[in-house]
Amino acid sequence: MLPDDKITWVDFDLLERFMTDAFAAVGVPREEAAVCADVLIQSDKRGIDSHGVGRFKSIYYDRLRAGQQSPTTDFDVVKEGPTTAVVDGHDGMGMVIARRSMQMAMDKARQFGLGMVVVRNSTHYGFCGYYTLMACNHGMIGITGTNARPSIAPTFGVENMLGTNPLVFGIPTDEEFPFCLDCATSVSQRGKIEVYERAGKDLPVGWVIDQSGSYRTDTPQILKDLVKGTAALVPLGGLGEDTAGYKGYGYATVVEILSAALQDGAFLKGLLGFDEHGKKQPYRLGHFFLAIDVEAFLPLARFKKISGDICRALRASRKAPGAERIYTAGEKEHLTWLDRKERGAPVNDELQKQLITVRNECGLTQYRFPFEG
Amino acid sequence: MLPDDKITWVDFDLLERFMTDAFAAVGVPREEAAVCADVLIQSDKRGIDSHGVGRFKSIYYDRLRAGQQSPTTDFDVVKEGPTTAVVDGHDGMGMVIARRSMQMAMDKARQFGLGMVVVRNSTHYGFCGYYTLMACNHGMIGITGTNARPSIAPTFGVENMLGTNPLVFGIPTDEEFPFCLDCATSVSQRGKIEVYERAGKDLPVGWVIDQSGSYRTDTPQILKDLVKGTAALVPLGGLGEDTAGYKGYGYATVVEILSAALQDGAFLKGLLGFDEHGKKQPYRLGHFFLAIDVEAFLPLARFKKISGDICRALRASRKAPGAERIYTAGEKEHLTWLDRKERGAPVNDELQKQLITVRNECGLTQYRFPFEG
Repeated sequence: MLPDDKITWVDFDLLERFMTDAFAAVGVPREEAAVCADVLIQSDKRGIDSHGVGRFKSIYYDRLRAGQQSPTTDFDVVKEGPTTAVVDGHDGMGMVIARRSMQMAMDKARQFGLGMVVVRNSTHYGFCGYYTLMACNHGMIGITGTNARPSIAPTFGVENMLGTNPLVFGIPTDEEFPFCLDCATSVSQRGKIEVYERAGKDLPVGWVIDQSGSYRTDTPQILKDLVKGTAALVPLGGLGEDTAGYKGYGYATVVEILSAALQDGAFLKGLLGFDEHGKKQPYRLGHFFLAIDVEAFLPLARFKKISGDICRALRASRKAPGAERIYTAGEKEHLTWLDRKERGAPVNDELQKQLITVRNECGLTQYRFPFEG
Repeated sequence: MLPDDKITWVDFDLLERFMTDAFAAVGVPREEAAVCADVLIQSDKRGIDSHGVGRFKSIYYDRLRAGQQSPTTDFDVVKEGPTTAVVDGHDGMGMVIARRSMQMAMDKARQFGLGMVVVRNSTHYGFCGYYTLMACNHGMIGITGTNARPSIAPTFGVENMLGTNPLVFGIPTDEEFPFCLDCATSVSQRGKIEVYERAGKDLPVGWVIDQSGSYRTDTPQILKDLVKGTAALVPLGGLGEDTAGYKGYGYATVVEILSAALQDGAFLKGLLGFDEHGKKQPYRLGHFFLAIDVEAFLPLARFKKISGDICRALRASRKAPGAERIYTAGEKEHLTWLDRKERGAPVNDELQKQLITVRNECGLTQYRFPFEG
């Protein structure tokens, strides 16, 4: 995305230690700070720069300081059955809440075959794939979704109503990396638009509309207008019905319902992060986590062979003229990891400034970054 | 879709009795024939003409007579746990297999909160919404998917590899109709293309590509070439990555894996319906059914209120200039039912001929259709 001359590659371990210390400096208990840092750094390792250290300041650090979420996490199981649970996160740290919830779903799945945990009053939980990969690492299929600040317009509408509402699947394979489809149900999402902003580029046509239903491409203003509600994201499939945008709109609605209705949580405009007077308030997000224990159905090795065979057959199929390669979900992220393993995370000018600001504000004077002259 | 002067409206009860007798005439036990007819007629009642009586001959009757599926259904539970089961359908009637499987998932969900049944060696099970609506009618969320004859090309590919692979959700609400998102993970699907064929119309641009990756719109030839593999469906989101076609491709792959890998079943080119010599063989489809008992999480009425509130808020949101109305998934189908309740199902020339042929071949001489002079 960014030309190499505008970035400095920074060692993952350094970034992870720094983020852990910074989360701890604003009140997150050390062990939980390490979880939060791990979620962000795993995102950068996979090349999902939209959800990594680049968001540390705006989505977590700033919100913690503004009191929109609590640094300590009161993980409150309000209802529980053999395969199910409802959790209230009490506006704690989304990654901590989410990790414990997926672990709970997996524990139930190990015992009964399936497990599902839903959460209310949570906060941004980082990249969804983190939790589905947890399941894959234990021979399970992981499914998760979350609602989010309203941004997608319904089919035939122009108002930002639904969050980017990712519907995410992680599936074990016999390859070096699991199948992992980690995507929003809109054509694109805020994190990606932020990456365009950091790169100083206009958006592609087809991602965002204004109140007249026309496409917009002016990245910096779009980011402001998405918050104000005068721009909206287009659902996967596009505008109207000809190319089936109602399907993306439908999946976004499924995720909204699964993230709110089972947990008696907030939804749609209730997730704006500010009240009617414009005063900041918690985001009150909802999530769901579903774990399916493969061994309840058949031996894991057999399952992995079949899912791997499907991925390999897809990649080996006939390419379009001019196309170099066909990928399966999770493959590009794995290739990025192989590339970044030695190089570290790309940090551009803007992000460098953010990290220095946080370092100085938190008094973490023991850190000196490689991009400081 | 069709102009009114080209169709005759036929009473649903007459069609249902006729289809039951016709299924029975080709060897389906009477009670199971009634299930098969019910699935088809429910589809017509909801306006999903692509999956109703219009497919009775080509997808079921002809295949039964060709020996590609068995009129009797050996529903064989090969593995079972508290919340899970693997079923082998032994090439029986897809609707019978699917209905019993969803019932099994619901029974497990009633006891444990969640239930999931996967099926191998099945056949076309009709419109997916039928099974998710079963769950909704019992206060549960229903999820289903099925693989299918290969037709979608992967992102950057041109080869028909994945079925239209619907990923379908039914969710109870406090409205007159549940939320029901019943759609393929391609932009469009064969059943809809067949409706265009019956109407003698070209396809919209964006649905189908040829081997060079260019769009095609010539409906009758496309239907032939999809079977031959010289045309392919475009995944939801479109070609390439700019409008996120990799997401539709990803969801289609999820459905392929969930429909094959947990049940040790056939997949991709194994679902062509003919062998390497062109000889017809069973389709060996796989399905999955997931039931989530709402009451395991919170009182059903409270859940329905929230899911209903979400749907109502979406429909009441700001419309695009020129747009008349915003819908939620399942609403159009409900409106169609209100319209068709008195009128019956629309039967065009081509379908009239098919019904007469079947009637005569089966010796069901007691039937006389309103479109017979």
